[in-house]
Amino acid sequence: MEQLSELQKYRLKYNPPLPTILKNLKSIKAVPSQPKNDVRFKEHFPHLSNSPAFTFTTGSSEEKIGSLHVGILFSGGQAPGGHNVISGLFDSLKELNTSSSLIGFLDGPDGLMKNRWIQLTEDLVGNYRNQGGFDLLGSGRTKIETQEQFEGAVNTIRSHHLDGLVIVGGDDSNTNAAFLAEYCKKNDIAVQIIGIPKTIDGDLKNQNIELSFGFDTASKVYSEIIGNLAKDSLSAKKYYFFIKMMGRSASHLTLECALQTQINLAIIGEEIEAKKLSLNDVVNMIVDLILQRASKKKFYGVILIPEGLLEFIPEFGKLIQELNQILSSGDSIDNELLKHKLPTESYSLFIQLPMEIQDQLLLDRDSHGNIQLSKIETERLLIELVNKVLVKRGFEKGKFNPQPLFCGYEARSALPSNFDCQYCYALGFVACLLILHKANGCMACIKNLNLAVHHWEIAGIPIVDMLDFEMRKNKNKLVIKKNLVDLRGAVFASYARQREGWKEGDHYLCPGPIQFDGLEEIVERSTITLQLEQKI
Amino acid sequence: MEQLSELQKYRLKYNPPLPTILKNLKSIKAVPSQPKNDVRFKEHFPHLSNSPAFTFTTGSSEEKIGSLHVGILFSGGQAPGGHNVISGLFDSLKELNTSSSLIGFLDGPDGLMKNRWIQLTEDLVGNYRNQGGFDLLGSGRTKIETQEQFEGAVNTIRSHHLDGLVIVGGDDSNTNAAFLAEYCKKNDIAVQIIGIPKTIDGDLKNQNIELSFGFDTASKVYSEIIGNLAKDSLSAKKYYFFIKMMGRSASHLTLECALQTQINLAIIGEEIEAKKLSLNDVVNMIVDLILQRASKKKFYGVILIPEGLLEFIPEFGKLIQELNQILSSGDSIDNELLKHKLPTESYSLFIQLPMEIQDQLLLDRDSHGNIQLSKIETERLLIELVNKVLVKRGFEKGKFNPQPLFCGYEARSALPSNFDCQYCYALGFVACLLILHKANGCMACIKNLNLAVHHWEIAGIPIVDMLDFEMRKNKNKLVIKKNLVDLRGAVFASYARQREGWKEGDHYLCPGPIQFDGLEEIVERSTITLQLEQKI
Repeated sequence: MEQLSELQKYRLKYNPPLPTILKNLKSIKAVPSQPKNDVRFKEHFPHLSNSPAFTFTTGSSEEKIGSLHVGILFSGGQAPGGHNVISGLFDSLKELNTSSSLIGFLDGPDGLMKNRWIQLTEDLVGNYRNQGGFDLLGSGRTKIETQEQFEGAVNTIRSHHLDGLVIVGGDDSNTNAAFLAEYCKKNDIAVQIIGIPKTIDGDLKNQNIELSFGFDTASKVYSEIIGNLAKDSLSAKKYYFFIKMMGRSASHLTLECALQTQINLAIIGEEIEAKKLSLNDVVNMIVDLILQRASKKKFYGVILIPEGLLEFIPEFGKLIQELNQILSSGDSIDNELLKHKLPTESYSLFIQLPMEIQDQLLLDRDSHGNIQLSKIETERLLIELVNKVLVKRGFEKGKFNPQPLFCGYEARSALPSNFDCQYCYALGFVACLLILHKANGCMACIKNLNLAVHHWEIAGIPIVDMLDFEMRKNKNKLVIKKNLVDLRGAVFASYARQREGWKEGDHYLCPGPIQFDGLEEIVERSTITLQLEQKI
Repeated sequence: MEQLSELQKYRLKYNPPLPTILKNLKSIKAVPSQPKNDVRFKEHFPHLSNSPAFTFTTGSSEEKIGSLHVGILFSGGQAPGGHNVISGLFDSLKELNTSSSLIGFLDGPDGLMKNRWIQLTEDLVGNYRNQGGFDLLGSGRTKIETQEQFEGAVNTIRSHHLDGLVIVGGDDSNTNAAFLAEYCKKNDIAVQIIGIPKTIDGDLKNQNIELSFGFDTASKVYSEIIGNLAKDSLSAKKYYFFIKMMGRSASHLTLECALQTQINLAIIGEEIEAKKLSLNDVVNMIVDLILQRASKKKFYGVILIPEGLLEFIPEFGKLIQELNQILSSGDSIDNELLKHKLPTESYSLFIQLPMEIQDQLLLDRDSHGNIQLSKIETERLLIELVNKVLVKRGFEKGKFNPQPLFCGYEARSALPSNFDCQYCYALGFVACLLILHKANGCMACIKNLNLAVHHWEIAGIPIVDMLDFEMRKNKNKLVIKKNLVDLRGAVFASYARQREGWKEGDHYLCPGPIQFDGLEEIVERSTITLQLEQKI
C-alpha cells in the first residue's frame, strides 16, 4: 500500500465539481453530427473515416442501462491529472450501472498487448483520487504498430469482452488509438476505443481540443520555481539563470511560464525558426540583453530556453542531417574528414561548438545511428557560447555568473491543480458516455474550459478528423499535427507586446506554489494561455 | 514599484499571530541573567564577555517609552522570511513609539560601511509583508573585518544616531555582529547591535537557537520537488534521480527532506566522515542500492546527495590539500608530475576521476589559488563513477538511466511558509525589545518553536556565549560553530531506523506544494527535524 503525506490524504477527499450536463448521466442524449467523410482517409480508415462527432444534450428518458466492461491505460510521459481520468471513468460507469467494471492495463500499451492488468475497485481507485503521477497503472512508450501487436491487443480486448478501451495519451498515442479502433471495427469487435488528450507540453491542441490535461499544473509548478529564481536573482543581484523548459516540439510551456513570471527573456523556438535565425543570432540576443542590463548596473536576470531550441534553428538541423549522413558511412571521424565532407557553413558552426558538445554529437547516437539532439544540454551550450562572446567583447570579469537549470521532471507527476483535477475527472465521464453511445475512435473533448466548470460543454470528436499527412523519416504518415506556438496568436502577441519592458525592468512575478484552498482567483485561476486564447 | 502575483497580493494581508508574551510590548520586563564571563573571550571581548542574557516577563508598568532609531541589513544568502524580520521590527518600533524610525542598509554590510540606505515606511514595508527574497534591501557577503571597514560602519551608525542595528545573517555574519558590538561599546557609541539567526542550511543551531529561519520553507520547497520526482520515478519506472541538496557544511536539509519524502537513499556527509568512508565506498553504497532494487525488477529510484559531500570524504580533503600545495609551486602540471608528487593513494583517487573533474580540479581556482570544490558537480561525478562500476559488473545495458538535479537556488527566495512568516515576524519584535533593553551583542532567540505560536518564549542571548575557537586557514579564530547532523541525535536515528525499508520498498511521500490556507496539520506543520529534536 502506498503511503501518503497529509496533503495527499487531504486531496483524496476533494470532490471535483462536474459540468452541469454531466450531473445526470442516464438522461443524457447523444447527438451525432454529419460525418466529415474525408476521402483522403478512406484508404487507411475505410470504416472510421465516416464516423460522426457527438455532442450531448439533456434528455428525459431514463431507460435502464446495461453494464459496461471497460479497460484503460496510460501511454507516454506522465501528466498531472491522469488518475482523475480513471476515477471519473470509474464513478461514471458505476453511476450508469453498479455492475459495470473497469480494469487497468499495466505499464502502457505493453500491458494491453501482453494482457497484464488489474481490476480497479473503489478501494484501489479511492487511494489515487486527485493524486499526481501515473503509478496506479504505470505507463509506457511502446506503440501498437505491427500486425502481431494489433493481434495481441485485440486478443486481450476479446478475452475481457471489453465494451470500451480508454487510451490516455498524446498525439502519437491518440493516432495509435484511431488505428486500433479501425482494426477492431474491421474485425467486428464490438469495442469502443476512446482517446483522452494528455501532455504537459500543450502541443496537443486544435479546434476541438482547447487544452491537453497536465499543461495547467505543469506550467504552475514551473512558474513557482521560475518566480522563486527570479526573486533570488533580484535579491542576490549577481546570477543569470539559464532555465531550459520542458517541451521538445513546441514552446508553449516556455511562453506560458514567461507570461506567468515576466522574466527578462524567453526564447520562443517557433519565432527562431520563422525568422530563420542562427545559433549565433540566439547567442547575440542573449548577449545584447546582458549588455543592456549591465548598462543599468544590473548583472542578473532570468532567461527561459525551450528544450527543443536547437531543432528550431535551421542551420543546426542541417548540420545534424549532414553529420548523420557522414556517420552512417561508418568511417572513423576526425577533424580533417569533417572539414572535407561538411559544407563550409556547417563546418564553421560545428567547430564553434564547445568540445564536449562536438564529442556528444559524434558519439552519442541512438539505435538507428542518429545523433540524439535531446542529449545536448542546450542551457549549458548557450552559457558557454554567451560567455565566449562576452569575454571577447571585454565584459567585466566576474560579472557574468550563469547558473544552468532544467525545469523538467519535477512537474510531470505533481499533485494536480484543482483545474486538472476537474478537467480530468470530467474527461473520464465523457469517455464513459462515448463508450455508452458507441463513439468508436472518438476523443473525449471539453469546451469552454476558461469558464466555470458548470458551463463546460462536452463532445466526442473522431480522432480521424484530427489527422493529417506529414513527412516523417521520409514516409508520408498520418498523424495528429503537433500544435506549435502561433506567432500571430493572442498568446505570443501578449509576450511580444511586453517583452521589451521586461528586458530592462525587473517586473518579475512570483506565482508561488499551487494552492488548493482559499480565494477563487488563486485556487481556480487557469493558465494565461487559455485565458488569452479564449478571449478571441 | 514591484509587481505582484495574486498569491503574493493575498499573502500581503496575512497577519502572523504573535507569541502571548509579545502582545503588549510596553509592559514587558527584561530579566537579565548572571553573565557567563568566560575568561577565554576576555581578550577579544573586554566589554561584551560579561554581558547578561535576557529573558522577558509580563510586567505591569506602562511608562512612556522614547522613540528609537534603528537600522537593519541582510547579510549572506537569501532565506525565506527575511522581509518579516523587517516588518516585525517596524511594527514593534511603531508600537512602542510612533516617532520611532527604521532605515534599511542596501546590499548587505557594504551598504552600512558606505552609508547607502533607504527609509523604511509603512508604504514600503507594507509591500513586502510575508514575501520571499531579500529584494527590499538586497544582500551581500562583504565582511566587516578591517579597521577601515569598522570605521566606515561606525561612521554610518553615528551619522544616523542609531539606537540599534539589526544584522540578519548566518554564523559568520553574527560573529561579525559581535565584533562590531564590541567595537561600538569600546568607542562609547550607544548603539545596540542585535543578531538574527538566518540560514536555510539549518547549521546555525545550538542550545539557544532551536532553528534558523528559512530552513522550514526551504526544506518544504525541496521536498515538494523531491516528492514529485519520486512519484515520477515510480510512474515511469526507468529513471534514477541523483539530487544534490543545498547545504555545503551540514547535511540537515538532506536529512530533513529524506524524512519528508522517504526516498531510497540519502547520503549524510557527517556519517561518511565519521565512518571515514572513501569515494569508492560512497559509489559502492549507491551501486549496492541499484543492484538490490534491480533484483526486484526495479530500475528506478531517488538518491539525495549533500552539496558538501566531497568535503566530508577524508581522502578527498587530503587530495585537495596536496593538489593545492603542488599547484602553489607554480609548476605547469602534467600527469607525470602528479604521479611523482602525489602520495600513491591520492594519485590513484585522482586518476579514477572523470577527465572533466580532473581538469576542473587543476584549472578552476579561487583568488587565493585554491581549488574550488564547490564548482564540482558532485551529482554528475557520482553518476559517472556509479555507471563505470555498473558497466564493469555487467549490469543490463540501458537499464541505468540517471538524471542529475540540484535542489538549490529555487528555495532561497520562495514565499515563506506560515511558520517562517510567524517566526521571522516575532524575531523582529524580539530584536526591537533587545534594543529597547540595551542588549548590545545579543541574538534574538525564540524557544518552544514546535508548540503553537502563543507558547513561544523569547530571549536575547549574547552572541559571545555562542562563540568558540576553531582553526580556519591555520589561524585560531573565534566563530560560532556550525551545527552538524548529530549522528547520535533523534533525527538521524529516525532515518537510520527506517532507511533499510526505504531502499527496496517505494515508500515515497509527496508533501506537495506549501499550503497557506486550510487544515492546520497541513498549513502549520513544522519540520520533522524540529519535531524530533523537541521530543527529547
